[in-house]
Amino acid sequence: MSSTGDGGRLNRGTAGVTASDRTIKHSTGDGMKLLELYAKMKKDISYIEKELERSIDVDHPMLREASLHLLKAGGKRIRPVFVLLGAKFGTYDLAKIKHVAVPLELIHMASLVHDDVIDDANTRRGQLTVRSKWDNRIAMYTGDYIFAKALSIVTKLPDPAIHQVMSKALVEMSIGEMEQIRFFFHAEQSVRDYLLRIKRKTALLLAVSCQLGAMAAGAAERDARRLYNFGYYAGMAFQIRDDLLDICGTEKEIGKPPGSDIKQGNITIPVIFALRNPALRPYLLDELARIEACDGQTDVRGFLDIIRGSTGIAEAERMASTYIDKAIRVLEGLPDIQAKKDLVSFAHFVGNRSY
Amino acid sequence: MSSTGDGGRLNRGTAGVTASDRTIKHSTGDGMKLLELYAKMKKDISYIEKELERSIDVDHPMLREASLHLLKAGGKRIRPVFVLLGAKFGTYDLAKIKHVAVPLELIHMASLVHDDVIDDANTRRGQLTVRSKWDNRIAMYTGDYIFAKALSIVTKLPDPAIHQVMSKALVEMSIGEMEQIRFFFHAEQSVRDYLLRIKRKTALLLAVSCQLGAMAAGAAERDARRLYNFGYYAGMAFQIRDDLLDICGTEKEIGKPPGSDIKQGNITIPVIFALRNPALRPYLLDELARIEACDGQTDVRGFLDIIRGSTGIAEAERMASTYIDKAIRVLEGLPDIQAKKDLVSFAHFVGNRSY
Repeated sequence: MSSTGDGGRLNRGTAGVTASDRTIKHSTGDGMKLLELYAKMKKDISYIEKELERSIDVDHPMLREASLHLLKAGGKRIRPVFVLLGAKFGTYDLAKIKHVAVPLELIHMASLVHDDVIDDANTRRGQLTVRSKWDNRIAMYTGDYIFAKALSIVTKLPDPAIHQVMSKALVEMSIGEMEQIRFFFHAEQSVRDYLLRIKRKTALLLAVSCQLGAMAAGAAERDARRLYNFGYYAGMAFQIRDDLLDICGTEKEIGKPPGSDIKQGNITIPVIFALRNPALRPYLLDELARIEACDGQTDVRGFLDIIRGSTGIAEAERMASTYIDKAIRVLEGLPDIQAKKDLVSFAHFVGNRSY
Repeated sequence: MSSTGDGGRLNRGTAGVTASDRTIKHSTGDGMKLLELYAKMKKDISYIEKELERSIDVDHPMLREASLHLLKAGGKRIRPVFVLLGAKFGTYDLAKIKHVAVPLELIHMASLVHDDVIDDANTRRGQLTVRSKWDNRIAMYTGDYIFAKALSIVTKLPDPAIHQVMSKALVEMSIGEMEQIRFFFHAEQSVRDYLLRIKRKTALLLAVSCQLGAMAAGAAERDARRLYNFGYYAGMAFQIRDDLLDICGTEKEIGKPPGSDIKQGNITIPVIFALRNPALRPYLLDELARIEACDGQTDVRGFLDIIRGSTGIAEAERMASTYIDKAIRVLEGLPDIQAKKDLVSFAHFVGNRSY
């Protein structure tokens, strides 16, 4: 779903290590730091990338083609990066860590394919989606296959606690998907409803990425917990930023026309804040009813303009910043290694990203 | 999919322990033995049934309702029964065994919901499907949720080998689903293509049900392997029987009009055999082309009549019997306990079932 974020504008096709991408021009100082970080981790990310390819090398033409198509569509591979950085707090052994890094990216990919079925999405990251290149059946089963594959890879690590964390995260994620549907076009939802939803949809998988990296590397339990919290806070900020971009970004910046969330009925935090304003509320409610009646097949520019002009934007930005602050603060208790600084850079990138 | 079989005619709503069901009248002596078996296991099956209900007691109204709806639609609970019988060859402890019995039935249920999305099925087991009662989105995410829940339950057993067996089975199952689509309306497929497909679609989950019951109960590895083979052979026979019923059964017997497989493009073993007959082949090829052109929305009675009149029926029946013989033979090496006799009864039921 559009709101799952990380549309892969940093890079297409490979693992975020090439600095030549057109999107870099939007980047701030944090974006530069991020590129340095990716460059520094280039070897390890490439290794994970190869393992990702190997993981879906199935002896089934359609399934392999559909999975590879997905993989090649790229993305920032934030989950594997979080795994790698989390693992730095223990005994860093790629041959072990890959058994969580690969599954976590696969789970993310599988959830995107299923979302595209739901959304009737024809493109993602500028590429045709599996459902439009093949059909919804292929997309659903490709998603099922990738989910299953992810779980079978993680079970190669003989640590049931890791399997538990992974499967519980999957349960929560699937509840989150349903929650999103349930709240489509619901003007009455609370900030809490929204936060719980994006926790399940986005933040949780980023949290367990950090945590499982640490666990797979045998880091101290206390540190794994801190890393979980870091991923959670950073993930919340990431999704809020993503939701802001869908309202405030230009088509050039975000790679698709803005407003796809509201067309789908996905009411995000700037809208929830704007709805609290008695002067805007009646107009926004009318607009929501109109958009819902057209099933999203309508012009939403007027609606977006009102939100952009409201204080909802600044309030949402503040909320994202608060999460970033929390993410950085929770790192304080961790050993002072380079990975800690890298996580801070990452948090700043997430907090300021405009692509 | 219709061909996943066990349409639950033995019983609706509970765990196969009530003998009053209308379908019993079709049963043979084997059917009676089966009922006795269910009656004997009644207490344990009811326990698993309650655990199944507890497992999907999620704090989400739509998800709980959709999952409960599925659960209440019933079924023969063959997978939990196989788990229970497999566990008799080790230390039988329900509190442990439930952690494989419940997930295996959940996985079966989840695959049915996803199949219904694919098939645009409006009813299953005489009840509205999740996709028709709610919609395809809810059905897909309900399936995802139930899959995830299944895996999170099995991870409560601290045995990574069990997690591995379970997740590998899931991978194979999802490949099987894709295989089925790939071979829709393919007249050129071989017997081997068919067998591999039904292995993945049906036999494998029954095989691991027996195996994981044994593993969870700490049975000898050799016995667990034998039980796996038993489940595999019985599962193959089960699916062949199911495919025969879809051609030879009456609507009253199978609870839906016959021919749903061929309408969908699913070419089953009696058809593959009949296609080998040069006298029938041209007519059958024409019919297949016609049915495909209408997307299955056509009368298939003529096609079914030809298959029923062909030697493909007897050949498929022989094939099912061979699998049953193999299933029974593989049990020979197991300790002579009551569960062994029960598995033999089960195999006979599967081999002769007409409902």
